[in-house]
Amino acid sequence: MFETPHIHRRAMLAALVTSAAARLVLPPTPASAQDAPLPSWNEGAAKQAIVDFVRATTERSSSNYVPPDERIATFDQDGTLWVEQPIYTQVIYCLDRVPTVVAKKPELENVEPFKTVLSGDREAIARLSMRDLEKILVATLTGMTTEEFGAEARKWIETARDPRWKRRYTELTYQPMLEVQRYLRDNGYKTYIVTGGGQDFVRVYAEKVYGVPREQVVGTAGATKFGYAHDGKPILTKEPKLLLNDDKAGKVEGIHLMIGRRPTAAFGNSVGDRQMLEWTGAGGGARLKMLVLHDDAAREYAYGPAMGLPDSKVGTFPQALFDEANKSSWTVISMKNDWKRIFAFQ
Amino acid sequence: MFETPHIHRRAMLAALVTSAAARLVLPPTPASAQDAPLPSWNEGAAKQAIVDFVRATTERSSSNYVPPDERIATFDQDGTLWVEQPIYTQVIYCLDRVPTVVAKKPELENVEPFKTVLSGDREAIARLSMRDLEKILVATLTGMTTEEFGAEARKWIETARDPRWKRRYTELTYQPMLEVQRYLRDNGYKTYIVTGGGQDFVRVYAEKVYGVPREQVVGTAGATKFGYAHDGKPILTKEPKLLLNDDKAGKVEGIHLMIGRRPTAAFGNSVGDRQMLEWTGAGGGARLKMLVLHDDAAREYAYGPAMGLPDSKVGTFPQALFDEANKSSWTVISMKNDWKRIFAFQ
Repeated sequence: MFETPHIHRRAMLAALVTSAAARLVLPPTPASAQDAPLPSWNEGAAKQAIVDFVRATTERSSSNYVPPDERIATFDQDGTLWVEQPIYTQVIYCLDRVPTVVAKKPELENVEPFKTVLSGDREAIARLSMRDLEKILVATLTGMTTEEFGAEARKWIETARDPRWKRRYTELTYQPMLEVQRYLRDNGYKTYIVTGGGQDFVRVYAEKVYGVPREQVVGTAGATKFGYAHDGKPILTKEPKLLLNDDKAGKVEGIHLMIGRRPTAAFGNSVGDRQMLEWTGAGGGARLKMLVLHDDAAREYAYGPAMGLPDSKVGTFPQALFDEANKSSWTVISMKNDWKRIFAFQ
Repeated sequence: MFETPHIHRRAMLAALVTSAAARLVLPPTPASAQDAPLPSWNEGAAKQAIVDFVRATTERSSSNYVPPDERIATFDQDGTLWVEQPIYTQVIYCLDRVPTVVAKKPELENVEPFKTVLSGDREAIARLSMRDLEKILVATLTGMTTEEFGAEARKWIETARDPRWKRRYTELTYQPMLEVQRYLRDNGYKTYIVTGGGQDFVRVYAEKVYGVPREQVVGTAGATKFGYAHDGKPILTKEPKLLLNDDKAGKVEGIHLMIGRRPTAAFGNSVGDRQMLEWTGAGGGARLKMLVLHDDAAREYAYGPAMGLPDSKVGTFPQALFDEANKSSWTVISMKNDWKRIFAFQ
């Protein structure tokens, strides 16, 4: 079921040969045919919805034409652009930072929840309460300057590896979604990430990984405090005070705050994205609202309603969300059926 | 001293004739020579600083070259891009809205500060305290949906007129600063407004007036609350809760929140812009930091330190700011000496 690197290389070589042969014997085809969009997508309703939407909103003759300035596409990150199981990547970052934080503040060593994190006992760590988790986030994401945080997060994201695939986390981005982002940008869309994850964290790699510049990352954001370092240089310090909880209703509020326009297209995968899709859909005209369904245990994970599990087991994509998608003409993307491959390395 | 509309039209006609003749007899000149930047600026240190900065940061061979993605220019609005005297335009909007608000809530009619505003007594209105003013801002800027607010503000900005010039407020933008914004954009800069004014208010006209899209307006922002209207349609309601006070240190915090990059160029005119200029200057390489000095009582207003007034009379540009500008190599723009004209209609 997995493509091995070997088969993949053969397929690529075959494609190159075919392409070279085609150039010798066939008349030139238009650029759009040469670079067919969304190559990692199977033909089907999901791919068709994307292509139809782009055509409807960008062809001048279309009754649903959207001027370039208003072409805004928003993407949730965790579970929509990259793997969110078994635990959010940013939480792994925070857990990994605990030893360094405790080294600087030894008084935390025997204090919970830091003691449990330092024990390395995975089961005990998995049982930590939300309150404990918040303490860990505050200790590892605040109290330093924005520049110090950026340098630390960058170093981690460039080296840390996921235990299942033994890959860097930024390699665990979904190739079909990277293609959607590129396709939309090629058609004049501004692509935004609208994530429950930390805005400062995602900004560290968003440009390199998604082609989304820092200013187009909207995320959960804490306050910062302007001040001066000992040498008189101005600094911004990350404060333990929440400014924007960019999840659920907060996503719509964050979009208003940071973008100030209603999206024309929105992509999510969970109840945390429901309001963003509703807000997008309420705009009238052609609107693209899509939900990624995790139904591919072999190639990634399976935790959607399609798995026939009770809501308590399917987590962030309960049956009610599936029902609303059907009712509101949101398009559900089946990872298993709609995606030829999940990751670029497959 | 003023160009009359008549002379202006003649000058334009003359320019057109010259240009047509030139095309017949002269070899084509490069675009840069045809469209000399900053036509409303007199030659001098201020204009030279802008031109030198653009050259230093955009020519590939320059040691201070800045990649296009990082070319960020931030502009204060009130007093930097348009007139801020004798009272901020947005405050006039709020005062103008009071009768409508009271009509909907008659219980406010005999309550201060609404009673004073309704009296029309300008001197009494000018004496209102900051606390009173806050009550007026809350009553006129919150409690409605974001769409309702946008529609009301748009209607007002398209019709209300300044009493001195009998012009719409959006005509009271400084022509030389519009040219700087365009010049920077022509050289790959993303221009942002970073204003103490209300973000939602400025977004209503920023694109049309400054060529700055809604998502590039950073301003004082209140919280919004997601919910559903009676018909089930999702709405955002403006709440009386301050999220970002985008003034002084808050401008740097707002820049971090909304842009996530340190500006390469920053323009202001008051103590409210001091930290933004310091933050910009601390970035290393070529950085442009400019302050507009209001020293032209005849064509606009005079209230800077150049007027020889005590700090209590010069308001937002005290001597200390002038001293810091000298010490930190910020360039002061004299409206009187550096600008050929102030407004497009002159």
